[in-house]
This record gives sequence, structure tokens and C-alpha cells, in this order.
Amino acid sequence: MKVNGKPTRTIWPAADGEDGAVEIIDQTRLPFEFTVARLESMTDAARAISDMLVRGAPLIGATAAYGMALAMRADTSAAGLASAYKVLMAARPTAVNLRWALDDMTALLDPLDPARREVAAWERAAEICDEDVEICSKLGDNGRKLIEAAWDKKGRDGAVNILTHCNAGWLATVDWGTALAPIYKSHDAGIPVHVWVDETRPRNQGVSLTCWELGQQGVAHTLIVDNAGGHLMQHGLVDLCIVGTDRTTKAGDVCNKIGTYLKALAAHDNQVPFYVALPGPTIDWTITDGVRDIPIENRGADEVTRMTGITDAGEITTVTIAPDGTPAANYAFDVTPSRLISGLITERGVAEASEAGLKRLYPEKV
Amino acid sequence: MKVNGKPTRTIWPAADGEDGAVEIIDQTRLPFEFTVARLESMTDAARAISDMLVRGAPLIGATAAYGMALAMRADTSAAGLASAYKVLMAARPTAVNLRWALDDMTALLDPLDPARREVAAWERAAEICDEDVEICSKLGDNGRKLIEAAWDKKGRDGAVNILTHCNAGWLATVDWGTALAPIYKSHDAGIPVHVWVDETRPRNQGVSLTCWELGQQGVAHTLIVDNAGGHLMQHGLVDLCIVGTDRTTKAGDVCNKIGTYLKALAAHDNQVPFYVALPGPTIDWTITDGVRDIPIENRGADEVTRMTGITDAGEITTVTIAPDGTPAANYAFDVTPSRLISGLITERGVAEASEAGLKRLYPEKV
Repeated sequence: MKVNGKPTRTIWPAADGEDGAVEIIDQTRLPFEFTVARLESMTDAARAISDMLVRGAPLIGATAAYGMALAMRADTSAAGLASAYKVLMAARPTAVNLRWALDDMTALLDPLDPARREVAAWERAAEICDEDVEICSKLGDNGRKLIEAAWDKKGRDGAVNILTHCNAGWLATVDWGTALAPIYKSHDAGIPVHVWVDETRPRNQGVSLTCWELGQQGVAHTLIVDNAGGHLMQHGLVDLCIVGTDRTTKAGDVCNKIGTYLKALAAHDNQVPFYVALPGPTIDWTITDGVRDIPIENRGADEVTRMTGITDAGEITTVTIAPDGTPAANYAFDVTPSRLISGLITERGVAEASEAGLKRLYPEKV
Repeated sequence: MKVNGKPTRTIWPAADGEDGAVEIIDQTRLPFEFTVARLESMTDAARAISDMLVRGAPLIGATAAYGMALAMRADTSAAGLASAYKVLMAARPTAVNLRWALDDMTALLDPLDPARREVAAWERAAEICDEDVEICSKLGDNGRKLIEAAWDKKGRDGAVNILTHCNAGWLATVDWGTALAPIYKSHDAGIPVHVWVDETRPRNQGVSLTCWELGQQGVAHTLIVDNAGGHLMQHGLVDLCIVGTDRTTKAGDVCNKIGTYLKALAAHDNQVPFYVALPGPTIDWTITDGVRDIPIENRGADEVTRMTGITDAGEITTVTIAPDGTPAANYAFDVTPSRLISGLITERGVAEASEAGLKRLYPEKV
């Protein structure tokens, strides 16, 4: 996708010579500053993950893969490999893609002669990134058809209004994104789209990341508070919803950023199609009932009681919005049951949100 | 209710002598500072309403009534009366209670000899306040029974968990509040209650007002973002919901702060009782279908893109949280259809949310 008009990924090998550094967008500075951070070592990569300079499951995986490559620059021994795995894994222990990427890299590098590990690691990290881009691009093409159908349903009159929650855009992946990929593909194909962007409290990924990236691509959008979606749907102002997912069960339940379930309820109550976009490889085939079986992280109260923004003088500042000592709960995700989901948009097509639906697209998995 | 342990109303005649000033809590300073503002004139009262030092339908009405009393100090002529009506009405033209209070005061004062208007105005303003306190207190007693029943249902084991949205507490009325009155009555009666407080973006009345007033009364509470309620209900962590209402149709549809509808959907999906508390006099008997017939105000984008809090240095500061130039929509209210409402808590009892249910309690109105 584009930043200031220039095609950009969220992670890339540095172009300046032989030293094998990696560059990323420092997402903690968005939307106030576009800053590129340079990762010179495996510990830089681990810190980028733990300090959330990068976030989003696919991008975390890609960063971990490059972290292994950076580790191989310093130490290609078995001990170096094991230590890199351990340090990177500890950067964000609950991230499923992090483990997947580290396991993938280890399976490749471990059998190799240490002398060959460095080159192989850099090649595989690049490949993991390209695979992610390919999956998101295909997923985007499949989702575009749904948006085009919604446009046809309106007699191609006016923009298709799409509501999204949180950030499942290219900033969460290497390129294209998941929920936003169909939107970018539609925009590129000349289908007029307008996106309602949920602010997404408490971490504000909608306002700070989704608004920023849609703005950079020139996609029409309007910021709303998380409370507003139901009202919009009651009044016919939303044609379809598309969100991402952190974890999808084999029955099609979706664990995504807190508040997704409320929007799915509103969509269902107003006959608005509610789609979830996801790379097939992220489906968790070991779990069926998401509400019962997915543990939900309760994060620090500060994310709820404090808020970061920029002052009129241009200073990035965090303020407290709650009375002193107010206790806060901060559940990070909720589970949307499959009965509320119109379809799962994947790189292989759009599946019904059910075990049978997923089986049809991924027969090798079950 | 209490502030720093001392019984306080939201508006009262100043105690210091004969000059007839009125004092209010400056709610724009909450939760960071408890400040009493002094209204010396009718224009002070109008400014307190327009600048939202006071908010909440009943309190706006009470302030308008005292505004008329302050006007009569300066000019008891027919022209003075008409001018006060006009200035106060313009302070917040869409507030139904404002008009009601001004009409009530005018109907009383207009036929009187100008020499008698000042005393009569002060008496009637005090009476309007007392009537509001009486209604909220009775409503609270009726709601307390529902909370007690929920406690019984749990075998009186642990606290009753109540979710509320926005601020329908004593700060929105003269005393007791509407949605919070049953909670205060239960707390006073020794029923253990715990309140989940929705932050209530964009104006944050939950975090800044509801948390503050619950804290002052010593009622256990936990702040949550507006996205969290559905997850809590899915996991049995909410025993009932109680919210207020800005406008109630004769069919029992409820227009309340944006996001109320989403919580009602979640309550319905999880068989959690969803109650709305309201003074009977605020029912709008002229409207049936709330979604169709209640126009919803779209307020300024700044309320969505900017956020006020207090810095670690103790300075109240407003920061921008959105990328420069992000467009935002800011619908202030939404409508919850009566089918999602378990009951309407009024000063006369708990009504079914339907025309028949309201007719039974208010036979003289239809």
C-alpha cells in the first residue's frame, strides 16, 4: 500500500548495502508521525514485537522470521538458533503467528549446515512475507466480489458503505491487510466505497491506524465511536460489515477485538451482512466453541483510564480520563458466534461460517 | 447524594443571605475538580445550561426554573418575563425539560401581580426541585425491588452486577438520579451491588460522571469501554442492565445516549434483563415509533476526534486522537425498540415497555 504516495510494505530488508538490517514502520508513532525503525539485531526485532512497534498476527510472524535471520548474522550455531527462538518467543508469548513463524524457521534451519543457515534464513523470511502478501491479495479479490455484489444491489448508485472494527488493514499484515484488502481491491477496481471506522477503544486502533491507512490510499471514510454502529445500521447507512479475526474456530466462531460481537448483533438485527476476513492458515482446527473455549486476556487498567493524543502544540501526550483510583476491566477480545456471521472471506473463497463450510474450502484440514 | 461525605444536591439556593443567588456543581470540571459555581443572574443560569455546567433533562429544567426566579429579581414586568423565557429557551433549544419548566413557570407567574412574581418564582423553583427529588426517590424504590429480586435469584450470594450506560445519576437530576437511583437505594438497604460503568464515548459521561458519583457514595464499580458489555453478558457477569432515557415513546421505545441499543441487543441475546428508568412526566405521548420518528442530533466532529483528560502534571488538557483532517460523524443518541426492553422503571411502578403497559400506569395520559 502507499505512504505519501509511495508503495510501501510494513517490513522490508534495508536497501543500503550488505549489512542485512531490516526496516519497519514504527506503528506506535501513528497516526501522528510516520517513522521507519531499523532493526539491526535479533534483540531489536524482539523489542519491536514486545513494544508493539509492529502488531497484527501476520506482521508479528514476519518480524519474528526476520528476527531469526538477524540472529543468524551473529551466531549460526545450534545454541544461537535455540537462543533466538527463546528470546523472540518471549516477546509476545500469546501470539499464535509468532510461534508458527519461529517453528517454521527452526524446521528449515536446524537440519542445515551452520554455514548455510544465514542465507537460508534471509531467503525464507522474505518468502514468508511474500506468501502473506499473496494470501491477503487473493482474500482481497474474493472479498471484492461481495462488495461489487452489494454495489450491484444498490443499482451501482452511490458508494458502498462498509463498517469495520479495529485495524485489520495492511498495517497488521505485510501488505493489503485482511478486512481492508477487499476494500482496497474495490477502490482500485473503481467501485466507490465509503468506510465507517470504529474508533476501537481502548487502544484506538481504528482511529489511529485504520483512519490513517485509508487516508493514505485515498479511500473515503468517516470515524465513528464504537457506540454508533447500531444506529447507522438501523437507518440503512451500512451495506455490509467486514472485520478481521485473531482466532477462528473450526465451527466458524470468531475471536476478534472487543466489541466485534456487539456489531455482529446489530448487523443481524438489521439484516446487514457481516463478514469476517482471514487467512486460512490462521484457523484453529482444535477448537469448536469459541465462547466456551477461548480464554480472553484481561489487560492493564491504564489502557482504559488513560488516553494518548497530540496537543495543539504538537506534543504527543497521555492524559488520564477517569477519577483517581477508578478500577477498570480491560477484556481485549470477544467471541462472535458463527450464527451471526454471513461468511468467512479467505484466500480460497468465501466460506459459510460453519464446520461444513470450512471443510468445503479446507478439506485437507479435517 | 454525598460529596466528600456531605449531603449535596446538584442545585440549591445559596445560603449566604438575602441576595438570592443559586449554586450548582460545575460538571464540566468533573471528575478532576469538584467546583461549585454561583449563578447571580438569569444570564448566568442560561450560560450554565448552554455551556453544560449542568446537564441531564431534570437538572436543566430545575436550572431554568431558578433562572426565571433570578430574572424576577431584576425585572418582574411582562417584558422581563418574556425576555427571560426567550433567553433561557435559547440556551439549549432541544431540551424538552427546559421548555416544560419555562412553560410551567410562565403559567404561574404571568397571571400574578408583578409585585408578587419574585417570591412566587423562588417558591415554585424550589418546588420543582423537590418534586424531581420525590419522583427519583420513588422510582429508586421501585427499581430497588428488581435488584433485590436479582439478588434473591442468586441466593443472596455475592453482589448483584448491574451494567449502566452514560450518566443517569443524581448529577443528571436534582438528587438520586434515574438509572442510578435503584442502585443507591439498594446500596442503602444493604444489598451488595457492583456496577459495570460504560465509558460512554464520545463525551465520556460514564467515566467522568458515573464513576465519580458512584465513588463518592462508596458503591463498588468497575469502568469498562463501551465495547466490553457484550463479552461480560456472554460470560454471566451481568445480572441486569439499567439505563436512563432522554425520550420515551408511548409504545415504550427509548431514545438514550448512543450505544444503548447495542447493549440492549447483547442483553437480549444473553437473556439478561434490560431496564430503563424514567420519570413518568418525561414520556412523549405524541410519538409511537422511536426509530422512525425521533430525529437524532449529529454533533460536532471534535467530540470524537479530541479527548479531554488530566496530565500527570495535573493540567486539564485536550488532545487530538485522530489523524489530521479525519472526518467524523457524531450521532448523539440511538433508539432502543421496546421489544428489547424488559421493563420501564417509573415513580408509579415498573411498566411493561408497550403502549398497554404504559397505559396501565398512566391511564390519564391516553
